[in-house]
Amino acid sequence: MTSASAGSLTAADQHLVDGVLAGRRRALAKTITLVESTHHDHHRRARQVLAALLPHTGRTIRVGISGSPGAGKSTFIESLGVHLIEAGKRVAVLAVDPSSSVSGGSILGDKTRMELLCQRDEAFIRPSPSSGSLGGVADKTREAMLVCEAAGFDVIIVETVGVGQSETTVAGMVDVFVLLQLPNAGDDLQAIKKGIVEIADLIVFNKADIDERAAAFARGQMKAALTMLRSASPNWRPPVLTVSALAKRGIAEFWAEIERFQRTLTASGEFEEKRRRQAVDWMWSLIDSGLRRHFRAHPAVRSALPELLSDVAEGHTTPGAAAARLLAFVKH
Amino acid sequence: MTSASAGSLTAADQHLVDGVLAGRRRALAKTITLVESTHHDHHRRARQVLAALLPHTGRTIRVGISGSPGAGKSTFIESLGVHLIEAGKRVAVLAVDPSSSVSGGSILGDKTRMELLCQRDEAFIRPSPSSGSLGGVADKTREAMLVCEAAGFDVIIVETVGVGQSETTVAGMVDVFVLLQLPNAGDDLQAIKKGIVEIADLIVFNKADIDERAAAFARGQMKAALTMLRSASPNWRPPVLTVSALAKRGIAEFWAEIERFQRTLTASGEFEEKRRRQAVDWMWSLIDSGLRRHFRAHPAVRSALPELLSDVAEGHTTPGAAAARLLAFVKH
Repeated sequence: MTSASAGSLTAADQHLVDGVLAGRRRALAKTITLVESTHHDHHRRARQVLAALLPHTGRTIRVGISGSPGAGKSTFIESLGVHLIEAGKRVAVLAVDPSSSVSGGSILGDKTRMELLCQRDEAFIRPSPSSGSLGGVADKTREAMLVCEAAGFDVIIVETVGVGQSETTVAGMVDVFVLLQLPNAGDDLQAIKKGIVEIADLIVFNKADIDERAAAFARGQMKAALTMLRSASPNWRPPVLTVSALAKRGIAEFWAEIERFQRTLTASGEFEEKRRRQAVDWMWSLIDSGLRRHFRAHPAVRSALPELLSDVAEGHTTPGAAAARLLAFVKH
Repeated sequence: MTSASAGSLTAADQHLVDGVLAGRRRALAKTITLVESTHHDHHRRARQVLAALLPHTGRTIRVGISGSPGAGKSTFIESLGVHLIEAGKRVAVLAVDPSSSVSGGSILGDKTRMELLCQRDEAFIRPSPSSGSLGGVADKTREAMLVCEAAGFDVIIVETVGVGQSETTVAGMVDVFVLLQLPNAGDDLQAIKKGIVEIADLIVFNKADIDERAAAFARGQMKAALTMLRSASPNWRPPVLTVSALAKRGIAEFWAEIERFQRTLTASGEFEEKRRRQAVDWMWSLIDSGLRRHFRAHPAVRSALPELLSDVAEGHTTPGAAAARLLAFVKH
């Protein structure tokens, strides 16, 4: 990889880049696999391929969709995807599911869950990378998102389940974050309690066809709750919608709200500002995890750490003294 | 400070340590001032004094008390403090208020707010350190807590206001975390939404004397909400109490619950396990902030950072590539 280290692409990687830019599915899938690889040798190649693709990214809208199991995320995304394709758009669906490496499955692993969308050439569906930690999964999904953008998709949908901090993480990588809810109070309370409602730009009650009165009631309750929460933007008050993904009702209205969001925040400058801030935050989070990794790999730290950890846990050393001693090893 | 660097205390610092261990207020206050000092020269001295005090710490119960402004924290802590002193205990009250450096004041700055407690020899009240960031404030309060323990206090109370992440931070440094609430639904929703209810080991509705029915209703509502949240320990379901701090009603019952908490979690081993985990987490957080500080101080990083930050924000470089380039400077 000497030519790669000089900053130029190998012929094979240039071929990948060309394939992605031409919108070829095979090149797209192979590039995402390269980006997701944990193989050390692949990291530098992935960075260079991404650098070559970067000028072709960003001309999309990135939509995060979260909701508890049973809220009907797959059906909703499928209906939305088909609607968008019929409107002439190309749609990529990615997933962030930190539990997939544990469970062996992924929220998008079972492709039959989005059968209609899978059959469309204008759609690309990719299950969650299974690299273990949420940070690792999220980093790879962020990069896969850039690859899809370079491949010419217009809309990127990032799906997540409510596992730990995954909603906050996904909200930090998309332009607009959607919370899909069931019209029942338990689901509401969970979302309010976890602070998810606070980070949502749109709240959607799905399965409204089952009990329209319950859905209208849930919508009213949520709107009341929202008045007590601070909204993230002074120019946008999160709307609360009811849809029926299965009956394909409310999908066009939902997308109109997404477009209104994009227009409003683009006009105020917040749309671009959010992307800039997300990119910088992402860089710092990569730096922090890199620093921690280097630190733990340092021979002196590795040899002193176990005893100091146990001293700190047992109260024989203060955390401050232990930290100072370990940090002294890596001071430059 | 050459003798200090060899690990032994100077005569003056030994005098401080002896004073603290003898329970002398002046030595206690001076030691906390040393611990809180941002003077670089004082850091090493503070670490050595703390190391000398460490074997005498830990034989206390550390109680975190949080609540929105107006919930009556000062009155509650004063009533509790007087109750404990009358039961033969010595009580230290510390505060974590990251806003104090901005506002110039501190939640405990106005000592007249706890007039009765201030006059007692068995009490020690210390306002929040004003070092800027929440992490900095919290680290200094953690160390002040150890100094108070070495000085023979039996109960350490850490008060905090609901500013940003301060509740989570305080919950991470105490044995038992108490949420003080007003009996009205707005206060409840705020606490549920911010995830504070989830980390509380005890929930107390204060000012129950003003409207007993409202207090009973709020208590019922909160108990219902709690059934939907997961509790932190399988052995402890957070009780919901009503008190009137001003009328000194319910204070003895509150303390009985704190003692039951300590007994229950000591029996299951969770009490000690929590302290061990807190100490280790604290060490890692000190290491992370130390690594970040070293990193930013590195000459090559300092000179390359501004341009890379702007490249990342403008989308000319991927966060991954920028992070890799910056990390390469500090690789050992």
